[in-house]
Amino acid sequence: MNVQLISVGTELLLGDIVNTNAQYLSQSLAELGVNVYKQVTVGDNRKRLMSSLHEAFCESDVVIITGGLGPTDDDITRECVSQYMQMPLRFDEMLWCEIEQFMKRNRSNCVITENNKKQAYVPEGATILYNEIGTAPGLLLQKENQTAILLPGPPFEMKHLFNSYVKDFFKKQQQEVFVSRYIRCYGIGESTLETQLKDILDAQTNPTIALYAKTGEVMIRVTASAHNSKEAIEKIDAIINIIQERIGEYIYLISDDSQSDSQSQLHQVLAQLLLENHLTMSTAESLTGGEIAAKLIEIPKISQSFIEGVVAYANDSKIATLSVPTDVLKEYGAVSEQTAIAMVEGIVKRTNSDCAIATTGIAGPDSDGTDKPVGLVYIATYMKGNIIVKEYHFNGDRQRIRQRATSSAFDQLRRMIEHEIRL
Amino acid sequence: MNVQLISVGTELLLGDIVNTNAQYLSQSLAELGVNVYKQVTVGDNRKRLMSSLHEAFCESDVVIITGGLGPTDDDITRECVSQYMQMPLRFDEMLWCEIEQFMKRNRSNCVITENNKKQAYVPEGATILYNEIGTAPGLLLQKENQTAILLPGPPFEMKHLFNSYVKDFFKKQQQEVFVSRYIRCYGIGESTLETQLKDILDAQTNPTIALYAKTGEVMIRVTASAHNSKEAIEKIDAIINIIQERIGEYIYLISDDSQSDSQSQLHQVLAQLLLENHLTMSTAESLTGGEIAAKLIEIPKISQSFIEGVVAYANDSKIATLSVPTDVLKEYGAVSEQTAIAMVEGIVKRTNSDCAIATTGIAGPDSDGTDKPVGLVYIATYMKGNIIVKEYHFNGDRQRIRQRATSSAFDQLRRMIEHEIRL
Repeated sequence: MNVQLISVGTELLLGDIVNTNAQYLSQSLAELGVNVYKQVTVGDNRKRLMSSLHEAFCESDVVIITGGLGPTDDDITRECVSQYMQMPLRFDEMLWCEIEQFMKRNRSNCVITENNKKQAYVPEGATILYNEIGTAPGLLLQKENQTAILLPGPPFEMKHLFNSYVKDFFKKQQQEVFVSRYIRCYGIGESTLETQLKDILDAQTNPTIALYAKTGEVMIRVTASAHNSKEAIEKIDAIINIIQERIGEYIYLISDDSQSDSQSQLHQVLAQLLLENHLTMSTAESLTGGEIAAKLIEIPKISQSFIEGVVAYANDSKIATLSVPTDVLKEYGAVSEQTAIAMVEGIVKRTNSDCAIATTGIAGPDSDGTDKPVGLVYIATYMKGNIIVKEYHFNGDRQRIRQRATSSAFDQLRRMIEHEIRL
Repeated sequence: MNVQLISVGTELLLGDIVNTNAQYLSQSLAELGVNVYKQVTVGDNRKRLMSSLHEAFCESDVVIITGGLGPTDDDITRECVSQYMQMPLRFDEMLWCEIEQFMKRNRSNCVITENNKKQAYVPEGATILYNEIGTAPGLLLQKENQTAILLPGPPFEMKHLFNSYVKDFFKKQQQEVFVSRYIRCYGIGESTLETQLKDILDAQTNPTIALYAKTGEVMIRVTASAHNSKEAIEKIDAIINIIQERIGEYIYLISDDSQSDSQSQLHQVLAQLLLENHLTMSTAESLTGGEIAAKLIEIPKISQSFIEGVVAYANDSKIATLSVPTDVLKEYGAVSEQTAIAMVEGIVKRTNSDCAIATTGIAGPDSDGTDKPVGLVYIATYMKGNIIVKEYHFNGDRQRIRQRATSSAFDQLRRMIEHEIRL
């Protein structure tokens, strides 16, 4: 089965917004074992949408069209697809009731105009994909082996309808069940990882394996197909075992969440370790400048663990608030192993917390007046009396260096806690 | 002139990456007054790319193809376009020299293989767009009123070549000069802004006006065309004056940077104010958890201003490090005007800085055990003896509330400093 995606919206052609819908649908379909043949974006223009529909159905069995389902005149998707499929539009009283109720419930001072009724027209014989979180319903049209699926443009609504209805449609089309798991690694580069797994990657058929790289992290997606999910999971587990044997020390999370984005989960894993083990936490940051504290405080309930963070950017602050000895700063400089240790000791003394992180380094663009290079970072982590300090060298611009330092700090403390717990 | 974009890459069809190239090119072309007719994404597949080229040139004069210029077998763009345009590939010794040198300079232990030579083949008669930051050169092919522009897929390289060569190509095609300016507003919603500017927006022809909304901010793009840039700027200024009269109090930056993304610049504007006026700065954060410090520390040279930040998440930390009186916490609670004021006073006492920000609030998902609602935030700002404290109510999830609080804190201190300076 071939699928083509058409995104409708002049705002996309003007570059006003990024087309995340195409990416989301493509990735979700790949996980279901469905092949996307082409992605096309057209403006709010009848003639061009009609010709794009024609081209799409020449090449594909299923066309998913997002956007252009609103109530205004330039929302043309419903009309064009109805015309193309020769399934004329009929007003649907029931649907109109739902839309009216939604608008009254969600919009204060809501004025319902004749225009709004447009969204209650349904091509004859189409299935309505009811939208509880917006006014534009999705639609599924089938005729002579051609299927058109219409979804609203706002990503939140699109995802909701895709997951509520469209996923099942594709699952039913497939003979097989598809299951995916995600392995998240930190501290190993994509090319090193590729080399270590080369034979598995080269030989992949089922499960399929894909690598996604993102600032210091690599996520491995393993997708298997089988007659049932038990079989698929067995296939996945066999591959995951081999991967774990080879690069286990870099893996910080294996999950089956379909959230499937390559955003780092390191801070979440660390926060969970802290909360599960009832460990209190504090931070003393120089070059990361509050980033470590801010990421941890993203996590709900972290108030049960996080006590205090100090952003000791100036030397005076390191001395006054973190009790870093003036001698240490003089002899070794602010960017040194010794200062990192003194910082982490200082914050622990202040807060008496079980765990702590301290960072100091040179994020650039300029060095600190010494001969130390931009990208040099020291991270000290503390857990119940023990301190680990490590030297790092990161490439890239100021933001990238700070981001890498933040992730590495999370990873360093995560490893330390996991090591201590295992003892 | 009609332009079509073709993005080549199976990774796009699998949804492994978001197609930001299409958005960047579309937006940049819109600013140049060039109309993008369609965006198409195809995989690394000869037949499909050939048919997409054919379709594109039926509808458009210029086709920009991104991706598929690498050294491996599945990089097919160069070959396909050369074949389509009937401009056969020739090995270019000079270009090969450049590529070799680039590789030796930038890759340690670099092994140059026969494969790499692929990138030094150039369609006969094509213009090479030399790439100083990568191995894949761009190419510009012209034949019988058809123009194909090939750019590498990595966004950083694509943008570099677009700005170095392709922009000029389009400028030369245009009879008119296009100039854009960007007005950034904070604290006014998109729909309110639309209402206030309705007559201007409805009547727009030249300049054109576009609104871009992003978490609490709206950016207004004003683009004018004229015979020369002086005339265009006059047209823009006339509109900007009207906009300033109506919503001036919400405008925090008017710039002509073509960076043209809707990322907030509030922290940059504040950092610049601090640095220009030699003001030192410190922060005391509760719900924002270090975000305010971290954003300010993004700015190079901020070490000249930023002294210290305290993330006083626990009440104990508020008491011990920020000297918030226990009575204040007991009587009014951690989320109160009084606590915000005590926090900002506490950090100023610690650091003796000229300016300071303190934040306290409930980011959710749960409330703090009192009857105060999620989204309630107090922000106190300090400048040389004066304190302003404000109550805010933000909607959305934990991250959105924290982000809005961060931006609002920047805006509150920015207004305070600007007001003091004007006095």
